[in-house]
Amino acid sequence: MIDMRRLKSSDADFGRQLDELLAWESVADTQVEDTVAEILRQVRDRGDAAVIEYTNHFDRRNLQSAAEFSLSQADLEAALERIPAAERESLEAAAARIRDYHRHQLQESWQYREADGTVLGQQIAPMERVGIYVPGGKASYPSSVLMNAIPARVAGVDSVAMVVPAPDDQLNDLVLAAAAIAGVDRLYTIGGAQAVAALAYGTESIEGVDKIVGPGNIFVAAAKRAVFGRVAIDMIAGPSEILVICDGETDPDWIAMDLLSQAEHDQQAQSILLSPDADFIDSVAVSLEKLLADLPRRDIAAQSLAERGALIRVDSIEEAIAVSNRIAPEHLEVSVEEPEQYLPQIRHAGAIFLGRYTAEALGDYCAGPNHVLPTSGTARFSSPLGVYDFLKRSSIIYCSPQGADKLGRIAGNLARGEGLEAHARSARYRVKG
Amino acid sequence: MIDMRRLKSSDADFGRQLDELLAWESVADTQVEDTVAEILRQVRDRGDAAVIEYTNHFDRRNLQSAAEFSLSQADLEAALERIPAAERESLEAAAARIRDYHRHQLQESWQYREADGTVLGQQIAPMERVGIYVPGGKASYPSSVLMNAIPARVAGVDSVAMVVPAPDDQLNDLVLAAAAIAGVDRLYTIGGAQAVAALAYGTESIEGVDKIVGPGNIFVAAAKRAVFGRVAIDMIAGPSEILVICDGETDPDWIAMDLLSQAEHDQQAQSILLSPDADFIDSVAVSLEKLLADLPRRDIAAQSLAERGALIRVDSIEEAIAVSNRIAPEHLEVSVEEPEQYLPQIRHAGAIFLGRYTAEALGDYCAGPNHVLPTSGTARFSSPLGVYDFLKRSSIIYCSPQGADKLGRIAGNLARGEGLEAHARSARYRVKG
Repeated sequence: MIDMRRLKSSDADFGRQLDELLAWESVADTQVEDTVAEILRQVRDRGDAAVIEYTNHFDRRNLQSAAEFSLSQADLEAALERIPAAERESLEAAAARIRDYHRHQLQESWQYREADGTVLGQQIAPMERVGIYVPGGKASYPSSVLMNAIPARVAGVDSVAMVVPAPDDQLNDLVLAAAAIAGVDRLYTIGGAQAVAALAYGTESIEGVDKIVGPGNIFVAAAKRAVFGRVAIDMIAGPSEILVICDGETDPDWIAMDLLSQAEHDQQAQSILLSPDADFIDSVAVSLEKLLADLPRRDIAAQSLAERGALIRVDSIEEAIAVSNRIAPEHLEVSVEEPEQYLPQIRHAGAIFLGRYTAEALGDYCAGPNHVLPTSGTARFSSPLGVYDFLKRSSIIYCSPQGADKLGRIAGNLARGEGLEAHARSARYRVKG
Repeated sequence: MIDMRRLKSSDADFGRQLDELLAWESVADTQVEDTVAEILRQVRDRGDAAVIEYTNHFDRRNLQSAAEFSLSQADLEAALERIPAAERESLEAAAARIRDYHRHQLQESWQYREADGTVLGQQIAPMERVGIYVPGGKASYPSSVLMNAIPARVAGVDSVAMVVPAPDDQLNDLVLAAAAIAGVDRLYTIGGAQAVAALAYGTESIEGVDKIVGPGNIFVAAAKRAVFGRVAIDMIAGPSEILVICDGETDPDWIAMDLLSQAEHDQQAQSILLSPDADFIDSVAVSLEKLLADLPRRDIAAQSLAERGALIRVDSIEEAIAVSNRIAPEHLEVSVEEPEQYLPQIRHAGAIFLGRYTAEALGDYCAGPNHVLPTSGTARFSSPLGVYDFLKRSSIIYCSPQGADKLGRIAGNLARGEGLEAHARSARYRVKG
């Protein structure tokens, strides 16, 4: 029996119980930070030699030269040929849909001209070089390659490099095939803080990048945090979460499996159901028990449900949405009749899955939108990974003589108010008489 | 005599010399980080009481209660009434232009429907609460209030809070007036790491925010870095820089004053001129010497030019642009004939000032674009502060039964390839027969 938390939004201390349920904070680990700082320093100072040493040590490899951790396009193409046709077709279908969706995120440079001839605008351009981190071993997911590389490619980034560790020389063919499909330019079989350092600082064989994206373990996260500022990084993700709002009319097995699909990720993953229908909540609990039994990852899923899951009775769908806005979930399923009517009320969520047919898992792989989403309530202030994450903007100002005259007077006043006389004079030089 | 660096792009070791010129790195200071960590902990645990203690200590104040560090709308309006009419008009004119420009950055939610009825899209919404840090004392700039608060307001943020320290109980009326004009909702006269902590965690009297923006000293920067992840932050800025490209046909006094307007910010500011005209470079050097003499901040400007400035002879405007792309300057002035022809070649710059009449100082105050710009080469991967910094996105997926059937098959295949069986089953439940 899973002993899953049951809450009621009408309970007097529901707010406190909800805070307890959501409590999660990444703990800073000084020892990890010190180890990472030393790795970063070594790679910055000694380049490939340090990368090789750390890789041989941590990944139990026997690299003699940098050439041995570089894969060629031919290596990627070969992996694509080796994988089963059904998986190749699925990867290609997913990639095509992800590409189509992300093209809607492209943004255009814009300008406007004022009456006096002054032109203002913003020029939007892709970054030059991006690096993608892909974990090795069990958590080496081809879907993650597609989701990170395709938006960069759609943005028009010149060069997309990818790092993936090969512990004991093992690589996942599906991951290499996904890299071929996504259009990765360069692939290095290295991982950990040493790979992040190589991407951030560059080495003799690896060109430094402008931005590093992709998930990783605690060492990778600490390294990304440490190089933030020198290069751009994506958000550092917490455990994955799903919040399902259901009116009680969806098959309880479907909803239970949606909750389990999140719970099977890891013990810290969080699955929450909100429903106004008490009988339905009971049915889902029964389904969870039943469906868990023959899942390969049942131990992980059961622990996740017991420690971090919850079944919450609410008064109405509207109240469920208010609770959801407070949680700002990574994934929000709205499994109700006419779900689109609730969109305007949904304020914070990484991705919103509407209707009974939209399983969250579709979004993980192939619906089109990105599966890299803000976790742990950060949907309050951040967005899914997208094309916009690989574009940047330059302001454009082109003053006519008349415009410079008008603006020079205003700027002159304000600069003097701030005690910046050279600013005032520079502006006033362009004021007529 | 200012002993300003002179370089030639044709020199064999120009690349190395350029690297030396640009070398600048914010140094992590462990003692500062430890102090800040303790302040953050105290404010998180003890709220207002800790904020009051630190403020009394660092800002030499004698606060007895939280009410004393809160200003009302009436206080802001009173400051607006007190300032001279010319300055009020200039602030209002600047605010109107900044608002107009930033309205062009608003983005709309979008959706599209596929042939089988599946709907995909992205919902774009403002953040709820934003906090703006404004430095106190000498560096307390009203223009900074406008540049940080107006984009948040244009984005539609519900509540904009501002913190500004009042050392020895001194506040700048222009800063309070700018807050009134920009539409700041709440103003707290606190600063330093304790103000960042109050905004990030919330206290009894200060509601926690979702994002913190604005410049500050080393303690503020360390505090922002430490709370990054719990809340969003803007970039942590380095010293300000200007790169001027001139064909030699602009008045050398104008160009010299543009360089000086950057140099007067602080000793670490960087002013660089690129020109193919050797005589013009000499003329600018003479102008610099002459114009520096009666600047109130001449000591700061002279030190900045001597330590970090450079006059660089290039072969052509095209080569100057290539050098500029390598530098990725915060401010780029293109003071040449028909400057717009070079826009497509300019790859990395925070703001681009085109033509002889567009003094960089106009952009600092009132042209319209934001003056919060990426420094130290970070224009390679980041953008001016904008409305987009206060918006966030939620993906939308609404599958038709037909769409769920098609996508469920693909997702099922890929989930099994990744060993995630609950994902596969959740997707396959929606596949027909």
